[in-house]
Amino acid sequence: VNETIVGLDADTQRTLELIGLFVFALSGALLAVRKSYDVVGMAVLAFTTACGGGIVRDVILGDTPPIAFRDLAYLLIPLAATIAVFVGHRAISTHLLGIGAVFDAAGLGLFCVTGTVKALEFGVRPAPAVTLGVITAAGGGVLRDVLAQESPAMFRADSVLFSIPAAVGAALVALAWKGDWYSGFVGGGAALGVFLLRVSAIQFDWHAPRPRP
Amino acid sequence: VNETIVGLDADTQRTLELIGLFVFALSGALLAVRKSYDVVGMAVLAFTTACGGGIVRDVILGDTPPIAFRDLAYLLIPLAATIAVFVGHRAISTHLLGIGAVFDAAGLGLFCVTGTVKALEFGVRPAPAVTLGVITAAGGGVLRDVLAQESPAMFRADSVLFSIPAAVGAALVALAWKGDWYSGFVGGGAALGVFLLRVSAIQFDWHAPRPRP
Amino acid sequence: VNETIVGLDADTQRTLELIGLFVFALSGALLAVRKSYDVVGMAVLAFTTACGGGIVRDVILGDTPPIAFRDLAYLLIPLAATIAVFVGHRAISTHLLGIGAVFDAAGLGLFCVTGTVKALEFGVRPAPAVTLGVITAAGGGVLRDVLAQESPAMFRADSVLFSIPAAVGAALVALAWKGDWYSGFVGGGAALGVFLLRVSAIQFDWHAPRPRP
Repeated sequence: VNETIVGLDADTQRTLELIGLFVFALSGALLAVRKSYDVVGMAVLAFTTACGGGIVRDVILGDTPPIAFRDLAYLLIPLAATIAVFVGHRAISTHLLGIGAVFDAAGLGLFCVTGTVKALEFGVRPAPAVTLGVITAAGGGVLRDVLAQESPAMFRADSVLFSIPAAVGAALVALAWKGDWYSGFVGGGAALGVFLLRVSAIQFDWHAPRPRP
Repeated sequence: VNETIVGLDADTQRTLELIGLFVFALSGALLAVRKSYDVVGMAVLAFTTACGGGIVRDVILGDTPPIAFRDLAYLLIPLAATIAVFVGHRAISTHLLGIGAVFDAAGLGLFCVTGTVKALEFGVRPAPAVTLGVITAAGGGVLRDVLAQESPAMFRADSVLFSIPAAVGAALVALAWKGDWYSGFVGGGAALGVFLLRVSAIQFDWHAPRPRP
Repeated sequence: VNETIVGLDADTQRTLELIGLFVFALSGALLAVRKSYDVVGMAVLAFTTACGGGIVRDVILGDTPPIAFRDLAYLLIPLAATIAVFVGHRAISTHLLGIGAVFDAAGLGLFCVTGTVKALEFGVRPAPAVTLGVITAAGGGVLRDVLAQESPAMFRADSVLFSIPAAVGAALVALAWKGDWYSGFVGGGAALGVFLLRVSAIQFDWHAPRPRP
């Protein structure tokens, strides 16, 4: 069988990626609702949250136009999320903390692994490839918060771990790549580890350390 | 005659573009005055508002350095706008709502058409080309607001239609391009349509829909 | 002897650049502490402040991946600054105004010259090369402030001259390059001039002009 870089068949990986994009886009559109933006603000924040991290990664790698401007799904899914939130934002807000957070964590795991591998394939060295993996997974959320005049969630001391699980998973991928023992099994394990770390962080309220005031 | 992509002769299009850049730059420099910035803040906001959208488009297309760093007019016009606002911001503020809004709408129409066509020429598919057309015309204003710590005007529910007219015009261009019936007449018509929609939106206070709270 | 573009030997220039990066990174990490961010926010702001200007320059020039993703020092130095600030931010805050401001000014001088020369070497014309030189030296600080929801320091009327000295030095470099009389002596003199202008601006409280309210 032809397995992907995270050890899944291509259709399964694609499905997971699209779900991840959709959940990221939902969080952008919901923030726009909380800020009382109109439908334009919703669509821009949905697209930025879902695709911003990958766009920054591709621009930095020089892989232009970025995948978000070549693959129509990257445009249509944020539009679908915008419509869903426009119609049913109250229902979505209520339920997002549950099932949404699970898919959000899955997206985090998947995108940090695929982003790191893409950077390594482009010849970037392991340490900056880890940075690009984290940017892929977490950059869209930072851009969303900056556009919406919010303090970036992942910087705040009261936020539960988000980018540190991604950095751990990306580091494992880079280490395996450099040591020549990377496989779909390793990639899938790294994505799964990121997912479990993130879900545990939410469950047990884990925070990144902060300096003493 | 050699007509341009919007059906004008090259000199007329160039003149309109430079006026559009100047009016965009004025809005950046005027915001800097309202924020009590110094002349550096004025110049940065003027340049960002006028050129930011096109820079983002060119970086995404991989057409580097972007046109704003090759054509001196893209640097000199924001400087001229900065000087004009520095000397006469009271007079300009008072009169901008009238004649300025007209040229601003003309810039919106022109830049969304030229941005969309450029993206299509670079092989981008119709839907993302529309996105890049809107980014060309509206992206500078978003960057201006983010740099100046303002909620982006085009996201706010109380703002009159701005990016939706641009999206409509860009979609018409992309449709014509894909259907192989694009001509200067179509491009010029799309730009004119965007202009009229925008001016009508200001006149009749049209807003984008927003979700029920 | 092989002298660099600022008339120093390669090791001396490298040392000065790394010190400049470290001091820029310190200012990012210290801002994160003032904003009560966690260690993730500190690391992101340290990296952005130190490397953001050069990343924007390289993306605009099409020199991808940017140097910050090829040279490991650009990643490790912000991490070192993050650890230093995490452990000793009180001591560093107290002493930064003195010795830190001197190295910050040295970084400003060095990076605006190297950034301008790099742009000229990539075939950019003198005026936009000056812009790119200033972006190299000052862009990281603007990105830091935008990410941290602060009004960009260099826009504010109460800030002492920062980007104007950089623009003067970059203009001298571009003039010499165009006139074919550029040498390491000129580059070093420009960097030194920027340094002295900046230090004088701090010492004598020089501000950029602002329009009458």
